Amino acid sequence: MRVRQLCPRLVVSDARRAIEFYRRALGAEETMRYAGKDGTVAHAELDLGGFILAVKDESEDDPSPTSLGGTPVQVGMRVTDVDAAAQAMVAAGATVVLPIADRPYGQRDGRLADPFGHIWVLSQQI
Amino acid sequence: MRVRQLCPRLVVSDARRAIEFYRRALGAEETMRYAGKDGTVAHAELDLGGFILAVKDESEDDPSPTSLGGTPVQVGMRVTDVDAAAQAMVAAGATVVLPIADRPYGQRDGRLADPFGHIWVLSQQI
Repeated sequence: MRVRQLCPRLVVSDARRAIEFYRRALGAEETMRYAGKDGTVAHAELDLGGFILAVKDESEDDPSPTSLGGTPVQVGMRVTDVDAAAQAMVAAGATVVLPIADRPYGQRDGRLADPFGHIWVLSQQI
Repeated sequence: MRVRQLCPRLVVSDARRAIEFYRRALGAEETMRYAGKDGTVAHAELDLGGFILAVKDESEDDPSPTSLGGTPVQVGMRVTDVDAAAQAMVAAGATVVLPIADRPYGQRDGRLADPFGHIWVLSQQI
């Protein structure tokens, strides 16, 4: 048994707006979208520099961070320029939870909350 | 700005037990562990067939699925043998949320909840 892919699957309160946000903020490219009833997004996949991020609208079984009041899973994203990545996210509407700074464990990192309540840990090796 | 890595960072109520579960259930290998105060796990990384899964103990800022009462992020794992993967997870203590079955969209998949409240979507291309 081999692992072919491991990806975060984000549930959001408004998938169409969220996908637009991830495109503008992260340069993500949408590669797949399945529509659910009522025009909701049942499953969409975004390509983020060769990695996959899945996004879907919330439902009875799948609450969003807004409905739950938080999230127990952060999305860790390591990039080549963490300051540029954080600036692009903030420009698109994210808020800073922990500012980007050099850390004693050898990386420059910080945390941002996207407009849909998901928490991103952005980092860069230094 | 290029993306070097995208990984789910799971907050759990007992990281040491959770890491042991992910090792037994998924064949994950621990590659890094930072201890926090009181012997808690501040950050650990597991290698899952070349993909990274991060795990940490909950804290005031980071609630676990147990504390929150759910999760708005599922971990999507595509494998070469989804039935074997699901059986191994169940044998290690996971529970079936949606049984593994062939789906009309061309994959065989299902959902499991691990003992720490994280939801796994296991899939295999058919």
